Amino acid sequence: MQHKVFIYNTLTRKKEEFIPIHPGHLGLYVCGPTVYGEAHLGHARPAVTFDLLTRYFEHLGYKVRYVRNITDVGHLADEVAGEGEDKIARKARLEQVEPMEIVHRYTESYHDNMRALNVKSPSIEPRATGHIIEQQQMIREILSQGFAYEVNGSVYFDVFKYNEKYPYGKLSGRKLEELYENTRTLDGQSEKRNSADFALWKKAAPEHIMRWPSEWSDGFPGWHMECSAMSTRYLGKTFDIHGGGMDLVFPHHEAEIAQSTAAHGHDAARYWMHNNMITINGQKMGKSLGNFITLNELFTGSHSLLEKAYSPMTIRFFILMAHYRGTVDFSNEALLAAEKGLDRLMKGMEATQKIIASAKSTVDVAALHHKCYQALNDDLNSPVLLAQLFEAVKITNSLLAGNETIDAKGLELLRKLYHDFVVDILGLLPEAQSGAAKSDLSGQLIELLLNLRIEAKNNKDWATADSIRNQLTQMGVVIKDTKDGFEWELK
Amino acid sequence: MQHKVFIYNTLTRKKEEFIPIHPGHLGLYVCGPTVYGEAHLGHARPAVTFDLLTRYFEHLGYKVRYVRNITDVGHLADEVAGEGEDKIARKARLEQVEPMEIVHRYTESYHDNMRALNVKSPSIEPRATGHIIEQQQMIREILSQGFAYEVNGSVYFDVFKYNEKYPYGKLSGRKLEELYENTRTLDGQSEKRNSADFALWKKAAPEHIMRWPSEWSDGFPGWHMECSAMSTRYLGKTFDIHGGGMDLVFPHHEAEIAQSTAAHGHDAARYWMHNNMITINGQKMGKSLGNFITLNELFTGSHSLLEKAYSPMTIRFFILMAHYRGTVDFSNEALLAAEKGLDRLMKGMEATQKIIASAKSTVDVAALHHKCYQALNDDLNSPVLLAQLFEAVKITNSLLAGNETIDAKGLELLRKLYHDFVVDILGLLPEAQSGAAKSDLSGQLIELLLNLRIEAKNNKDWATADSIRNQLTQMGVVIKDTKDGFEWELK
Repeated sequence: MQHKVFIYNTLTRKKEEFIPIHPGHLGLYVCGPTVYGEAHLGHARPAVTFDLLTRYFEHLGYKVRYVRNITDVGHLADEVAGEGEDKIARKARLEQVEPMEIVHRYTESYHDNMRALNVKSPSIEPRATGHIIEQQQMIREILSQGFAYEVNGSVYFDVFKYNEKYPYGKLSGRKLEELYENTRTLDGQSEKRNSADFALWKKAAPEHIMRWPSEWSDGFPGWHMECSAMSTRYLGKTFDIHGGGMDLVFPHHEAEIAQSTAAHGHDAARYWMHNNMITINGQKMGKSLGNFITLNELFTGSHSLLEKAYSPMTIRFFILMAHYRGTVDFSNEALLAAEKGLDRLMKGMEATQKIIASAKSTVDVAALHHKCYQALNDDLNSPVLLAQLFEAVKITNSLLAGNETIDAKGLELLRKLYHDFVVDILGLLPEAQSGAAKSDLSGQLIELLLNLRIEAKNNKDWATADSIRNQLTQMGVVIKDTKDGFEWELK
Repeated sequence: MQHKVFIYNTLTRKKEEFIPIHPGHLGLYVCGPTVYGEAHLGHARPAVTFDLLTRYFEHLGYKVRYVRNITDVGHLADEVAGEGEDKIARKARLEQVEPMEIVHRYTESYHDNMRALNVKSPSIEPRATGHIIEQQQMIREILSQGFAYEVNGSVYFDVFKYNEKYPYGKLSGRKLEELYENTRTLDGQSEKRNSADFALWKKAAPEHIMRWPSEWSDGFPGWHMECSAMSTRYLGKTFDIHGGGMDLVFPHHEAEIAQSTAAHGHDAARYWMHNNMITINGQKMGKSLGNFITLNELFTGSHSLLEKAYSPMTIRFFILMAHYRGTVDFSNEALLAAEKGLDRLMKGMEATQKIIASAKSTVDVAALHHKCYQALNDDLNSPVLLAQLFEAVKITNSLLAGNETIDAKGLELLRKLYHDFVVDILGLLPEAQSGAAKSDLSGQLIELLLNLRIEAKNNKDWATADSIRNQLTQMGVVIKDTKDGFEWELK
């Protein structure tokens, strides 16, 4: 079956059919984290969104080259003005360590979190500091095209000059005139010709440790340069999709478009995809705003706003419950709903193992299967997909209850539907297999032992029942007897 | 207590007291992997060795900055001659992917393996491709000092010229004259003046993708350059300890010394530490020799030379059973011995929880505690430390049996001794907490089930015995009844 996948292109403000540059291949660039602190819920959203995109295209048979960067230099405290101290250098100064120690620590922590969320590793994960040469080369190209100027060892992009030839602001819809009005007036101290100009290369102050030589000065690249240079290096001057959070549309992605166009005469990415924000009390959750909850806090429940710990799979489900272009408001209620929904879905998937095929089907799995694809083909609509999957759960329960029947082929398709959409595409794993967790085999073995224990109890063989319980306890298996049987967890 | 730690310095060929450059600080650089394949046992040894070093110095209160690099360019197939294809580029060509995809895949896999082995992440993990500028700067310094020459866009280190001023070969003990005799004669095609010269910068052939601009050519750095440039960047022109495998002494570390001395006028590292090799049938285990067993193969038992799977903690213990400067020969017998030894040690540590303090001690834990430090202070002698720890196990067992008594203070010290030396310093974790926890837990669960089956058989409860067997078979557990009981393995 050929699938026409439609995705919303921020650039054109409409859903467009995705046509790859090279049939069967997807070149994807997504802005990764600036590694100067623990990853929070706001970092999980783009990661899960573009993980879903990647998984779906791989499911459709595409070969995906997914490049997601690590920003380890050049991201200044005042993003819009492109001024202030480097975020990593500031953290390093506060902790009195080498900036690269900060980078290493938080990159590892980000990777740990992503692994827990079952977010697949990208194909390439380039770092800004690892591509200074490529950034310098691109700055030279922009200078040689006349769209940048050098002042006192720093190089700035000339937005005004660029706007005479190419439309600056086409991604964000901002008009240059408004930009001038909205940014603060230059105080005469600034080296920029216009407040909308942005740095391509900054001369480093004497105390600044993160610095590299160049013909302009010992300095460091402006934040926007890295993505243009690294996407060009690993995906070419034109590639399929550029993704990131909606908060990056301006100035980051607008600047990227201007840089690529200035250097190469054309846009780099054909489709721009942006996930919406996670809000908390209606405000964007972000490190700079100080209102964030880290992923580790969510996983352990150690934040005053959290009623309990939420597993990584619950967080993943919570993110997927909303379409990526809608906002998601954080609340314990929503997380609890996600936890329940995930549980219901997983139980439905497991229950298919107990269904026995009949000669005839009274349910139409093929139609459901088709609707699952439709949901994803319509701009990765994960909540609609989840609604279809809960239809599958209903069918499963009706089949188990004997209210409906299914033939062997239908049953096979039902199992495949769960496996493809729940596990492979949505990336949801039974908790027992996920992140930090218990292995599937161990889980099966424990269940078998606990069933033997129940049997022993039924036979009034208390010695055996106790011995099983004690030995399991020693292995770290905590058993809770319930009215329906038992529950267990690993310590 | 102040500890004098003695370490064997390859440079002086004797054990020397370690005196840090900055009191209380240790600057350590260790050569990490070239990421073009799965990590094998030979990679685990330096990782565990320098993890032990780091953990011990941290235990002693040092602040350690541990830099371990990732080689992702410039390591050519013929290491000694410094010629042939780049190892990563070759793998990428064979697999038809971008070289950085190879780098990403095997860096991740290396990290996974290190995590399983409970090897702590270094403080900084710099990559060769991320430091091209620093390497170029150092090449310029060497050129300006007159110890290198450019030919056709490549730059070579002039070993003969260097040797007129500084002793080339002082680390490896090789004499330049011998080097000339032992290396193949130049065929008139080579750009080098002398066969012992090595590349600092290589001009890239037109088809070579990994290339960067420079004043000499579009090319790439020679393999030896990265460590000199990156250690300088993150540890300074003089730092405490440089480590690596003994196979790196020549040419890699000899070249590093020459590069640093040529550029800065003095050595970079004060102490050079080298771990010996893992051998298999008396030959060094290595990727280039094709006789390696990967860590994943060891963890799963999937290699024809392996009788079974060995947990990551068993592998770690196996490495620590030998002093780092002795060779370790791979064999199933040695691995089985490690497995037993680890089990005995862990059981001893656990058993201290069951000991009850008496009014008086008949055992001298303080003396044992002192001997543990002595072992490590004597060039990190882990086998001697393990012997002391097995003394602790003996004492523990005597205490449990009631043959000896211990007072409260002694008991506290005994528990601390285990915790400090086994867990914190040797980095050995109970299997249930380690990366392989799940496989070990499964093993314990299977054993428990099989014992229940034997019991059922003894009670002539054939139904239960058969049911256990059948359910285990369905889970992939193959059971073989033997005259002593049973054996099992996972399919």
